[in-house]
Amino acid sequence: MEKLKLEVCLSPAMFHRYDCRGNIVVIIDVLRACSAICTAFENGAAEIIPVAEAEEAKEYKNRGYLVAAERDGFTLDFADFGNSPFNFTRERVEGKTIAYSTTNGTRIIEMTDKSYKTIIGAFLNISSVTEWILAEKKDVILFCAGWKDRFSLEDTVCAGAYASRLLESGLFTTICDSVHASLDIWEIARNDLRGYIEKAAQRSRLRDKGLDDCIDFCLTADITPVIPVVEKGKIVPLRYK
Amino acid sequence: MEKLKLEVCLSPAMFHRYDCRGNIVVIIDVLRACSAICTAFENGAAEIIPVAEAEEAKEYKNRGYLVAAERDGFTLDFADFGNSPFNFTRERVEGKTIAYSTTNGTRIIEMTDKSYKTIIGAFLNISSVTEWILAEKKDVILFCAGWKDRFSLEDTVCAGAYASRLLESGLFTTICDSVHASLDIWEIARNDLRGYIEKAAQRSRLRDKGLDDCIDFCLTADITPVIPVVEKGKIVPLRYK
Repeated sequence: MEKLKLEVCLSPAMFHRYDCRGNIVVIIDVLRACSAICTAFENGAAEIIPVAEAEEAKEYKNRGYLVAAERDGFTLDFADFGNSPFNFTRERVEGKTIAYSTTNGTRIIEMTDKSYKTIIGAFLNISSVTEWILAEKKDVILFCAGWKDRFSLEDTVCAGAYASRLLESGLFTTICDSVHASLDIWEIARNDLRGYIEKAAQRSRLRDKGLDDCIDFCLTADITPVIPVVEKGKIVPLRYK
Repeated sequence: MEKLKLEVCLSPAMFHRYDCRGNIVVIIDVLRACSAICTAFENGAAEIIPVAEAEEAKEYKNRGYLVAAERDGFTLDFADFGNSPFNFTRERVEGKTIAYSTTNGTRIIEMTDKSYKTIIGAFLNISSVTEWILAEKKDVILFCAGWKDRFSLEDTVCAGAYASRLLESGLFTTICDSVHASLDIWEIARNDLRGYIEKAAQRSRLRDKGLDDCIDFCLTADITPVIPVVEKGKIVPLRYK
């Protein structure tokens, strides 16, 4: 059987060079959006509406939705809470639809609208997502969200962890240089992930804003089997088992 | 003294997020443009005019210039030779102005027009370029040319080699994730550079076209002290010693 194709895209700025038709796209934004989304579904959220602009998030609030919205690390005054995974507790989110303010995430989701399926990947759900991918047998693009179109170390490390598992299955092959780079970086980082991420710029940004309490949590594998999937612009939990 | 800032840009698609004003920008395209340009100046070329379109290269030919031009690995019929460094022999290029057809390279040079100086870096001239940078004391962006806006392993390895030397000087500091990634990849690759580059997509593309005879050469450090620098859209040798 011909092997499936694996690619990594290291920044949204490069995604126009990828053809995602028929592919599973895994969006990876470890610190913190994808980790927060996984946590919300683990705690019973019904669906998440990604929202690009603060103004739009405010409209959702006025219409009675639960709203997670930050700018530069500060929870916006109209919002229910900020974007840390720790805010998405069962008490707050169970059964609820949440508007999640993320300019970058919303743009990335729109970029992948030709995909077979676009899902949200993190360390938190890596085993579940990779198992599901291996069952689906589609080409895969691991899409690192990065930061303001720039390369991000923590997303690349996570893409490397995913790539390592997919290639080990024997079902996938790759001729993508970004896959090789991600794998190399994952190999360096894997034995001391927390230590490795110390040098990441996003780690410093979160520390400067006092938002770094969630980093250890975001680097933890398999706290949830949930696979968040994009459906008509919303994110819902896909439960395949 | 405040330390100088070091950044790496992994693809032209991300360069809009970098502010190159006052910076030295080192353009890195190991296989093969930057290596060919270094070789041309080592062999006495007077200047190189980067040309974006084949049609424009043809006009240069009609006006009597020496022209290096390929498309998909084939030397264009009007050109004097293709883009391999081995074509730029002293017999052919000494004292000459050469029109060098490179769509990607021309675009990249235009992107950096606000820089303090834009220079051409390769393994071939790494010691000379890094020595010159350390004497200039400017912030530096190592700009990987990549391939069709995608990440390229060989350029990233070379950026890591440059970054390693600049940071070892103690004059530079960095908060750029791409620098850390390049350094890690360089550390993995450095003891067997030829072996490491085997997995690069560009290595396979060149092999498929029978253009891979120059790879060992392009991975060799310090065959020349020449520093090609962009001046008014042309590339000329900067000799600072």
